[in-house]
Amino acid sequence: MSRLADLDWKTYEARVQSGEAVILLPIGAIEQHGPHMSMNPDVLIPEAIGLGVAASLPNALVAPPIAYGYKSQVKSGGGNFFPGTTCINGKTLIDTVHDVVVALARHGNRRFVLINGHYENSMFIVEGIDLALTALRRDGIDAKVLVLSYWDYVNQDTIATVFPDGFTGWDVEHGGVLETSLMLHLHPNLVDMDKTVDHPPATFPPYDRFPADPSWVPESGTLSSARKASAEHGKLLFDVCVAGIQESIRGEFG
Amino acid sequence: MSRLADLDWKTYEARVQSGEAVILLPIGAIEQHGPHMSMNPDVLIPEAIGLGVAASLPNALVAPPIAYGYKSQVKSGGGNFFPGTTCINGKTLIDTVHDVVVALARHGNRRFVLINGHYENSMFIVEGIDLALTALRRDGIDAKVLVLSYWDYVNQDTIATVFPDGFTGWDVEHGGVLETSLMLHLHPNLVDMDKTVDHPPATFPPYDRFPADPSWVPESGTLSSARKASAEHGKLLFDVCVAGIQESIRGEFG
Amino acid sequence: MSRLADLDWKTYEARVQSGEAVILLPIGAIEQHGPHMSMNPDVLIPEAIGLGVAASLPNALVAPPIAYGYKSQVKSGGGNFFPGTTCINGKTLIDTVHDVVVALARHGNRRFVLINGHYENSMFIVEGIDLALTALRRDGIDAKVLVLSYWDYVNQDTIATVFPDGFTGWDVEHGGVLETSLMLHLHPNLVDMDKTVDHPPATFPPYDRFPADPSWVPESGTLSSARKASAEHGKLLFDVCVAGIQESIRGEFG
Amino acid sequence: MSRLADLDWKTYEARVQSGEAVILLPIGAIEQHGPHMSMNPDVLIPEAIGLGVAASLPNALVAPPIAYGYKSQVKSGGGNFFPGTTCINGKTLIDTVHDVVVALARHGNRRFVLINGHYENSMFIVEGIDLALTALRRDGIDAKVLVLSYWDYVNQDTIATVFPDGFTGWDVEHGGVLETSLMLHLHPNLVDMDKTVDHPPATFPPYDRFPADPSWVPESGTLSSARKASAEHGKLLFDVCVAGIQESIRGEFG
Amino acid sequence: MSRLADLDWKTYEARVQSGEAVILLPIGAIEQHGPHMSMNPDVLIPEAIGLGVAASLPNALVAPPIAYGYKSQVKSGGGNFFPGTTCINGKTLIDTVHDVVVALARHGNRRFVLINGHYENSMFIVEGIDLALTALRRDGIDAKVLVLSYWDYVNQDTIATVFPDGFTGWDVEHGGVLETSLMLHLHPNLVDMDKTVDHPPATFPPYDRFPADPSWVPESGTLSSARKASAEHGKLLFDVCVAGIQESIRGEFG
Amino acid sequence: MSRLADLDWKTYEARVQSGEAVILLPIGAIEQHGPHMSMNPDVLIPEAIGLGVAASLPNALVAPPIAYGYKSQVKSGGGNFFPGTTCINGKTLIDTVHDVVVALARHGNRRFVLINGHYENSMFIVEGIDLALTALRRDGIDAKVLVLSYWDYVNQDTIATVFPDGFTGWDVEHGGVLETSLMLHLHPNLVDMDKTVDHPPATFPPYDRFPADPSWVPESGTLSSARKASAEHGKLLFDVCVAGIQESIRGEFG
Repeated sequence: MSRLADLDWKTYEARVQSGEAVILLPIGAIEQHGPHMSMNPDVLIPEAIGLGVAASLPNALVAPPIAYGYKSQVKSGGGNFFPGTTCINGKTLIDTVHDVVVALARHGNRRFVLINGHYENSMFIVEGIDLALTALRRDGIDAKVLVLSYWDYVNQDTIATVFPDGFTGWDVEHGGVLETSLMLHLHPNLVDMDKTVDHPPATFPPYDRFPADPSWVPESGTLSSARKASAEHGKLLFDVCVAGIQESIRGEFG
Repeated sequence: MSRLADLDWKTYEARVQSGEAVILLPIGAIEQHGPHMSMNPDVLIPEAIGLGVAASLPNALVAPPIAYGYKSQVKSGGGNFFPGTTCINGKTLIDTVHDVVVALARHGNRRFVLINGHYENSMFIVEGIDLALTALRRDGIDAKVLVLSYWDYVNQDTIATVFPDGFTGWDVEHGGVLETSLMLHLHPNLVDMDKTVDHPPATFPPYDRFPADPSWVPESGTLSSARKASAEHGKLLFDVCVAGIQESIRGEFG
Repeated sequence: MSRLADLDWKTYEARVQSGEAVILLPIGAIEQHGPHMSMNPDVLIPEAIGLGVAASLPNALVAPPIAYGYKSQVKSGGGNFFPGTTCINGKTLIDTVHDVVVALARHGNRRFVLINGHYENSMFIVEGIDLALTALRRDGIDAKVLVLSYWDYVNQDTIATVFPDGFTGWDVEHGGVLETSLMLHLHPNLVDMDKTVDHPPATFPPYDRFPADPSWVPESGTLSSARKASAEHGKLLFDVCVAGIQESIRGEFG
Repeated sequence: MSRLADLDWKTYEARVQSGEAVILLPIGAIEQHGPHMSMNPDVLIPEAIGLGVAASLPNALVAPPIAYGYKSQVKSGGGNFFPGTTCINGKTLIDTVHDVVVALARHGNRRFVLINGHYENSMFIVEGIDLALTALRRDGIDAKVLVLSYWDYVNQDTIATVFPDGFTGWDVEHGGVLETSLMLHLHPNLVDMDKTVDHPPATFPPYDRFPADPSWVPESGTLSSARKASAEHGKLLFDVCVAGIQESIRGEFG
Repeated sequence: MSRLADLDWKTYEARVQSGEAVILLPIGAIEQHGPHMSMNPDVLIPEAIGLGVAASLPNALVAPPIAYGYKSQVKSGGGNFFPGTTCINGKTLIDTVHDVVVALARHGNRRFVLINGHYENSMFIVEGIDLALTALRRDGIDAKVLVLSYWDYVNQDTIATVFPDGFTGWDVEHGGVLETSLMLHLHPNLVDMDKTVDHPPATFPPYDRFPADPSWVPESGTLSSARKASAEHGKLLFDVCVAGIQESIRGEFG
Repeated sequence: MSRLADLDWKTYEARVQSGEAVILLPIGAIEQHGPHMSMNPDVLIPEAIGLGVAASLPNALVAPPIAYGYKSQVKSGGGNFFPGTTCINGKTLIDTVHDVVVALARHGNRRFVLINGHYENSMFIVEGIDLALTALRRDGIDAKVLVLSYWDYVNQDTIATVFPDGFTGWDVEHGGVLETSLMLHLHPNLVDMDKTVDHPPATFPPYDRFPADPSWVPESGTLSSARKASAEHGKLLFDVCVAGIQESIRGEFG
């Protein structure tokens, strides 16, 4: 039982009141990921990784994900103009992260790991945490928070295996081999490999343009092709992320 | 397939671009519900009802729930001081509702049903919608939104069946027969009837007091006993809510 | 002299510096109440009740009312689309309540009673108080606040007397017998009984609809008829509210 | 009947629907005004002036005052540290002005006069109006707003009469002859001339200091002595302000 | 070296860690100042004065100016409708002042002097400082802040010299002799005296009007003529401001 | 004359009223950059690049920089705990970008290039622009904005020249060869090469930690050594950025 919200409150209280529990909070987005995949990988993947991490860390609990994230950007998510991409303002995400962490800290929690699944969220998570730690400090509470994006745990060996033809960067992995492989491993019913589109990785000029110009983005909405994704590679990616995050937690929280 | 986020974006686009799809948005909370039940019934019940409603309304889609809700109040949820109750500020909920509805409307959606599962959310949902409709109107978009709390669909006959010893009001049903029965029907693994506590329905003075006084609330966190809850009554409650909401939707959206 | 703002500051200081004064803060709204009554009963009634309460509580003071309240809702106030209904955003009301209570606490006040006269205000008052208490705690100040809506002090006996033909709930009392009787007692010059309209109490579907549909609401703007209102019943209602609130204050503040 | 909120909504609608009514909105503050006077002159004076203006302008209506204003400053109000001075944040005042004007404009009103009674409010009123006009323009509404502080209508002749010993500026008139005379004329029961303190007008360095240094301010809280105030001069001041504002309204609104 | 941002951080740390450094923060605006002058005098003048002040106060440092200020008003800056006038919302200026002062205080600074160069900024600076001091106090930090507008340091003798034909008030000095003289002294390359326009000082009715009426303002954008400006008078004005501010600092900070 | 604020308003109006001017807005930060360099390179470099770009684009104007930026992060700026690093909240930066762009657009400008000099600003700039474009669209204005960070214009050839020993990424270039070379070229008086520290490029774990752990960062505050910086390489970097940005502008705006 590592889903925080699946516990009754007395069991939860018993597990967290020492302040030594580690709360894993997945933060994602509802965003198109190509014609071959559902729009929730940015939520489902970090949640699954959180559960994987907690599976062998008895003091870890996975909080309900923050499902709606910051606006999709052209170079990392195709852009906010795609039907289905359903994103919130930056201030709203900052406030949500702040409020949830402050509420959890009031239960006695002092150790947090925020697992991000959507590139565009990063800086708004950072700001939410900064404001939350300031607020908590004023209440006499010192908490410690790790913030990570799961793909940063994929090491060079795994990259070499998963991208045998060369790796063009996490940014163009939107809807590509990384996310599709993970979804094939975790939620194969939400992927239809027959609908993947073959196209070279997207390339972009060195600037961003607003309003977005849809012609910059492959019509599929993916920034690289998912054709070479596989559940097997998904398992490999999943395992390397889980193991790496566990190691970070053990290093920081003992 | 009625979960919005489980669709790929092209399928989604095809279903919503006419503006005639009905988007069901569950809004809940993470809140203690007594020692016998998980802390997510306010999310899981409206989501399940949404899926039930959509099951026989082909143009309906259920969006991912807004999982974190407004602060628990003593008289309707036991109070915000219980461990596990994890709530957000009013302004954050207003903004989240606003942002999500505006984003969905930009995909072409014009018909929304917000299914609330947490009493304290109501007025913040109302304000989020009011601000969203103002914003959309300035963009030349007219949308129509129904806002409901599922228990308002439980009719007198059902009340008479489920509460044979008398009904003392929805307010003290927190963690009681209503929610426990629904969870026994929908998620029996998240209920442990052996841990239910027997106590009379809570009674309160005519005012609220801040900061909350824990002695006003039964130690269990429930405001009435769940002892007489049953999966059978849960099914009855579920069916009457689903049927009623479907009827409202047909009446308003044809 | 129980109006706070009618005192000079030195007299005020002498009365509040012990921290044992009770500050009564009326919160209302400017909202249509039918063709037979002015648009300020939600301000005037709680202010009058506050003064009535203070009349026999020597340590009580009535602060100037917050006159503008949250947006009128169809089922409790007819809706925000009526000419004359002049309401503010939820965030503005939250902030106003917060700021006023924090300012009064900085004078040494620790005991507050917020007397609400407008149903739609309730949750925004709650949030304003929650934020104010958090802010004050960070300044090393612990205050205690009672929040009440005056009609919750009308007991069953009084209901039986005032509504001899049956009581259909406070929600449809907007502009009806309750408020009109109180205004006839308190401000008879602001009521014209000749203009009351006779219609059955409004009934509504179990959901709210946005934007509001004016056809849901009686053309008069009242949700039940005020025909049977009387100054005599107004006095009875006034006295029972005043006595009940005094009792709550004595119970909580000694 | 020129108090907006004393009208029933149908009468109000009839008076404003042409868009030619002039809405007068008094904006004040609750602030100490010395040991000899109540803490509400900044509300009562502009409200009375508004009613005086409306008395001979049949299309004018006086809205309920915004009673709580911006924080008192040392050089114009003695400072925010005085017991009784009960002020709100700048953002809250901006939002209140915005919301009230937008709400009134939605009834069809296009002509507004904001009568300020508290020096420190001025720039926050300006910002509230600027934001309101932007919002209304986006709704296709063009409104016109006059913003004034009543003392700016006191002409040189009146100054010569009321301050025969010389005039040292409106800034140090806080709690002095101007406001006390007006209150003696309008609300003599809220003034006790026996408690006036005799001291020379306050003088200040060319900078402001935060936090405020109470030693900069006369112990009385007044910035100049009210000893020479009189009801007769109050009437003179009142009449000149009323006449001047009427002339401005006729000039701008015909 | 008195420009804070020109120091490397180790040198800066050495200078401020005692808490006895005085941080001078210029706050200006980008605003038209007539056809004969650049749009940045409200930034350049207070920055130059700050540097002048710091030149003989070894513990003073000048922080980078806040360059964008509050919206230009008709009676003091010509109005916000002029091309080139580039102003920010009141809330944004409040927040900027708050954030910058809080950040500087976290380095150990406890002594601040805010040098305002744009009349319309004043109250928003005051509010930013009030909120910053509240925040810092909650962090256990007591800071002291002087807020000034440089023209308040011009004494009667200097006025007599610079305005030999009579002085009509700082308000109509926008783009006139005061600012033009200072710019001729400090940045002569940004003034073209040949383009000055001769017109009498602007006069205004006792109210403000929104939206602004451009016909109230001289076509030039200046509120009085700069024809009689000179670098010599600019030096005189500069020196008197610098000396006065130094004296205030010595008086308050020793 | 390409500094916007150095123009008088009539000259400015003539240059921008066609809507074809390109407004370059530098956005930086005040942040420590090691013991050998001033704390303003993130402002001075993009401003200089803007001026370089404008030098051969006659319709370009450089607006005054936004000097205060978002909080320094450990992995890209050393962290917000360094003395001298003076940063603002995310919401404040969002609002500032929004307000400045909206104000400039009201002058008729439709073409913007935001030149970022501080990595941590990026997402807050994006959000400010998104909100500004929404606001402008509601006013009937369509603008086009390019957002760029200047280092993204440094091509592979230049990297090979400037980093002959290998390039470890822009992230660890904080205070390193890139910025120091540019400052040596542009502002040699603000660099003291004798104070550079020799250390290998910083390496970090795959997560961020809050509050920051200073032991993660070299004591110098730089993330890689600036020892091999030179004015010659600074010129090379400057020229390649200027040329690249000019090409982007010509491509997008013709």
